[in-house]
Amino acid sequence: MSDRVILSVDAMGGDFGPRITLPASLSALRRYPFLTIHLIGDKPELERRLKKQRLPLSVVSRLVLVHAPDAVPMDEKPSLAIRNRQQSSMAMAVRLVSEGEVDACVSAGNTGALMAFGRLVLKMQPGIDRPAIITSVPTQSGHCYMLDLGANVDCTPENLLQFAIMGSVMAETVDGIARPTVGLLNVGEESIKGSELVRMANELILQQEGLNYIGYIEGSDVFSGKADVVVCDGFVGNIALKSCEGLTRLITKKVRHSFTKNMYRRFLAMLAQPVLREIQAQMDPSKRNGATMLGLQGIVMKSHGGADRKGFGYALDQAISEVRQNVPQKVSDRLASFVNTH
Amino acid sequence: MSDRVILSVDAMGGDFGPRITLPASLSALRRYPFLTIHLIGDKPELERRLKKQRLPLSVVSRLVLVHAPDAVPMDEKPSLAIRNRQQSSMAMAVRLVSEGEVDACVSAGNTGALMAFGRLVLKMQPGIDRPAIITSVPTQSGHCYMLDLGANVDCTPENLLQFAIMGSVMAETVDGIARPTVGLLNVGEESIKGSELVRMANELILQQEGLNYIGYIEGSDVFSGKADVVVCDGFVGNIALKSCEGLTRLITKKVRHSFTKNMYRRFLAMLAQPVLREIQAQMDPSKRNGATMLGLQGIVMKSHGGADRKGFGYALDQAISEVRQNVPQKVSDRLASFVNTH
Repeated sequence: MSDRVILSVDAMGGDFGPRITLPASLSALRRYPFLTIHLIGDKPELERRLKKQRLPLSVVSRLVLVHAPDAVPMDEKPSLAIRNRQQSSMAMAVRLVSEGEVDACVSAGNTGALMAFGRLVLKMQPGIDRPAIITSVPTQSGHCYMLDLGANVDCTPENLLQFAIMGSVMAETVDGIARPTVGLLNVGEESIKGSELVRMANELILQQEGLNYIGYIEGSDVFSGKADVVVCDGFVGNIALKSCEGLTRLITKKVRHSFTKNMYRRFLAMLAQPVLREIQAQMDPSKRNGATMLGLQGIVMKSHGGADRKGFGYALDQAISEVRQNVPQKVSDRLASFVNTH
Repeated sequence: MSDRVILSVDAMGGDFGPRITLPASLSALRRYPFLTIHLIGDKPELERRLKKQRLPLSVVSRLVLVHAPDAVPMDEKPSLAIRNRQQSSMAMAVRLVSEGEVDACVSAGNTGALMAFGRLVLKMQPGIDRPAIITSVPTQSGHCYMLDLGANVDCTPENLLQFAIMGSVMAETVDGIARPTVGLLNVGEESIKGSELVRMANELILQQEGLNYIGYIEGSDVFSGKADVVVCDGFVGNIALKSCEGLTRLITKKVRHSFTKNMYRRFLAMLAQPVLREIQAQMDPSKRNGATMLGLQGIVMKSHGGADRKGFGYALDQAISEVRQNVPQKVSDRLASFVNTH
């Protein structure tokens, strides 16, 4: 019983909807015998697609199709979604979390709408105003957490302070780091530099007790391991991380090109294939898919809208891992020990 | 005569000052027989360092040491630098451009102060309020221009519009692209997304005639070649590009690690060395060092503060290339054809 994990999946979310979410869900059910998925969306379409698959009973019996008469378009304003899309696959997926029917929900849909439904339905952790999208990023020494990655494009200094606290709590409770170092992303390390927002946030974070704040860090230090937690607003975080993904794709392409220029190089590539694969696997951005909306009273996992089957599968894995680690409860317990930030 | 290029170099700028700027300048003088450099800084120190080198007369005769009694600290506020550092190596380097003594100046110093001196001494191009740092970025199809990369951390929509115009003019005049595509960096491609700044800038750019504006692009498309010009504010641009540099370093390290795990792999690495070197050379961030402050009536080349000898050398190369291409004049001619943006 305690080992079982139940997820709700917004089948209609993302750029590809059920074309990706259905097979990715089935594949996860095959991988994890302890897993049950409530797949929420246009039931006739889901059933039609399901028929094409040959599935063992052991998998089908753990898949629950739930009909949602509506879906949130990717380009809809969050305020409109909240008003008009209560019967959408996304809203229903989030509601199942609040009702205790499932342990976590996963969606590749409209980020703003997902955040809005999360706040409305699940409510925020005490002392936190807005959820932040957080993910782990590889560094020279292991990994760090970076937040916010796009839930909040216009932030206040108070938001950034709360992100700092949540990120620190995450690194402490999930990774067991005693006093996680927290850095604020800026254009330079000198105290006179930066936007007004960042300088004001710096003042606030400096005053916050209980944080191991190391001050400003530059973009070049995100991957160096200088900080366990990297704090930024959602606009900057989203663009920085997506730029890095774009760069990874470019490098992969260049490497492939360099290794296929002539016969001799193709032969080398064959020999070096295990090494090249190993490197590529470490760098694969789709492996980093799946980012939590931290600060909600429940687990809402956001997948890239453009994620492929494998990528969406990683987001499901992430959700399972957070359920197993009981992340929201741990964060909530530890948050209570910080002085109220309001 | 017309082939000669004369640069002024702020010898005291950057994290390492003359330790980097002097040898990099000497090396450039050796590479380019047509080059003359005015090296500006603490003359006694420069002379002392110069004595240690054995130099042919053909090089020494093209190096002019100019004494500057002062230097701009890396963490000084631009407004203070403007008031108190008129006798600094940086201010003097910029003044030589305005006086027509040199064709361009190069500095690795305090970005804000360099921009402030540029605006004060060289003045802006008509219709442009603030300089933008622009650099070329590798893409799948070649390269694109990205601006601003850190000259302006707090931007207005009008600033972003002017960056779009300047970037477009740069791609048109330097690369000969007929109608360069211009994209505005945002967290999503949908029109409802983005910060307030970006949405307001989008409206403005849409109304601007003469631009081939393709709307929002995401971070993941910076390196895809979707746009010839990528426009963003200096805070986002700086962090995105520096994050990418950090990632490149991480990947380089991982590749090295993967190729040295055991004897067989080390043997492979030896065989593959030409390929690996080729890839590394293409990705080397220091090769991309040197970014112009576009919008000034004169060439001011900004090097990374932390650039090494090789990196600073690339910034010198860049300056020479822009002098040769007569970039500011071309930009100024073409800018005049745009409707006044004020």
